[in-house]
Amino acid sequence: MYKILVTGFSGFVSKHLLDHLDGRGMKSEVLGIDLNCPEYPYDHLEQLAVKFEKVDLLNFVKLRNAIHYFQPNHIIHLASYSSVGLSWKNPSLSFKNNMNIFLNLMEAVRELNLKCRVLSVGSSEEYGNVNEDKLPLGEECPLDPVSPYAVARVAQEQLSKVYCDGYGLDVVMTRSFNHIGVGQKEIFVIASFVKQLVEIKKGIKKERKLVVGDISIVRDFLDVRDVVDAYLRLLIHGEKGQVYNVCSGEGVSLREVIDIICGILGMRVEIEVDPSRVRPSDNKVIVGSNEKLKRTMGWNPKISLEESLKDIINYWSIAETGSLENGPHCA
Amino acid sequence: MYKILVTGFSGFVSKHLLDHLDGRGMKSEVLGIDLNCPEYPYDHLEQLAVKFEKVDLLNFVKLRNAIHYFQPNHIIHLASYSSVGLSWKNPSLSFKNNMNIFLNLMEAVRELNLKCRVLSVGSSEEYGNVNEDKLPLGEECPLDPVSPYAVARVAQEQLSKVYCDGYGLDVVMTRSFNHIGVGQKEIFVIASFVKQLVEIKKGIKKERKLVVGDISIVRDFLDVRDVVDAYLRLLIHGEKGQVYNVCSGEGVSLREVIDIICGILGMRVEIEVDPSRVRPSDNKVIVGSNEKLKRTMGWNPKISLEESLKDIINYWSIAETGSLENGPHCA
Repeated sequence: MYKILVTGFSGFVSKHLLDHLDGRGMKSEVLGIDLNCPEYPYDHLEQLAVKFEKVDLLNFVKLRNAIHYFQPNHIIHLASYSSVGLSWKNPSLSFKNNMNIFLNLMEAVRELNLKCRVLSVGSSEEYGNVNEDKLPLGEECPLDPVSPYAVARVAQEQLSKVYCDGYGLDVVMTRSFNHIGVGQKEIFVIASFVKQLVEIKKGIKKERKLVVGDISIVRDFLDVRDVVDAYLRLLIHGEKGQVYNVCSGEGVSLREVIDIICGILGMRVEIEVDPSRVRPSDNKVIVGSNEKLKRTMGWNPKISLEESLKDIINYWSIAETGSLENGPHCA
Repeated sequence: MYKILVTGFSGFVSKHLLDHLDGRGMKSEVLGIDLNCPEYPYDHLEQLAVKFEKVDLLNFVKLRNAIHYFQPNHIIHLASYSSVGLSWKNPSLSFKNNMNIFLNLMEAVRELNLKCRVLSVGSSEEYGNVNEDKLPLGEECPLDPVSPYAVARVAQEQLSKVYCDGYGLDVVMTRSFNHIGVGQKEIFVIASFVKQLVEIKKGIKKERKLVVGDISIVRDFLDVRDVVDAYLRLLIHGEKGQVYNVCSGEGVSLREVIDIICGILGMRVEIEVDPSRVRPSDNKVIVGSNEKLKRTMGWNPKISLEESLKDIINYWSIAETGSLENGPHCA
């Protein structure tokens, strides 16, 4: 029986993780913890016994107690203040809600002497600006973080290794590239684009312009359902102390993504650059290699970018009518 | 006129920094800040107007106010929970008192829009375990931290770069190797050895055994007076965004250091290994290259290891009689 603690439980990745666990028939007890209540339902999942507890991961005592009472054998650490843009606006907040929360989690596991595997989710932002001749980025590529968020993620990964080698804990690390999907908040770029374009199409947004930052940047987008498939494989079969890229292996510019969305919606749009959305330093091109994940975990991405975008468009089209707003689930 | 803010003001490096500034006739206003009062006198320094303010660097508002009222044009950030051993015992405390204090300092400078150079002191521990064929370590050597302390120091250095490149702040970074000297606390290895050996020699320590950790490890020791000489040169002439090793360029094992101390004291000693002093993972050999510092700053180390150890032996010999204990100076 899996007893899985999930941090960052209110996030959209967590929702898809539960769906995936349930869909695979993986009978599990799940304790979700988060500062905020999840806004999705989870009572209908047949294979899972899910509980939620409101825990601020910066509150060490409360976190340790939650872990102590639940006694998980697996932890998936999804919690993160994961916006690069916001990390430029508030580096301290970004650090506390990446680095310090992770430290608290690891210290709780260490103090409780828990036999437990931890999946530490990191970010492709750790790689920083690399020459295009180094693409796609393999796990051996040196890390050169260029934003406060990226520095915090590198520290999280390096600490994971320290906890493995120095304290004998069992941690598997990811460098997760941009993931997209249904339920992602609009502070993230693709959700922002789709929401704006759906609103323009429907006539809800009067100013018929798509407001963007730098759309020349190239990213590697992976559907969240493929992401959680990778996470569960790594949680069970990953090698202790190893780092795995989680990515599609394909690069696409934000401009191209806009074109695909407009194509699906059958519309054209004027683009307006908002300088406040252009970051001080940014990685121009991030494309990863997923060879290690494929080779060692038998994983393969199943959902194309077009399919993913269609689902997201559908989500925002319905969301605007209010029918997807279930409200917080703090049962 | 230099207006220099010094963090970690109660530490022994700060004392030597003031002596060096004064000896060089560098007329300066100095504001020292620290959680603890300095235990050395500073009223006698003729070229300096020195003030001390008790500030916890984790208290952002108090720190920002102190900087705002003083308006420094130079900051030397010496504050650090700089023990590798203690970082293994309390990684969270180590992180907060390296990473979070540094973030607060940089955020204060950024928020106040201060035209001010910052010297960010880092550590040779950032390099981690390297093959001996890579020695001496040059600044271009990849970083591979193996302790919680080292991870925090890498994050500090990477954040310094982010603040330079992303926010346009003026930061110069060091990777400082082990430094030793008069006034260093006995939680540090050389001070601990000398204090124990002086006590054995004097008959104060009844058990005539030197208690040690792993003494096969090789380190690069530099006298603190050469260290502060380097810091002041870098503070004034260092290149923004650059990292400089501060080291002697010579490796010596702890066993050899014990032999030198015993030679100076004219004694032999039995050695006892205390397993609690042996760390979970440790760098076997750390020796740096100081070529960049020499080439660009005209710096050269002036004090040999033997001379340094003689001064430290003299210090602990007198300290035992109580004559060096001046008590806190919180004027």
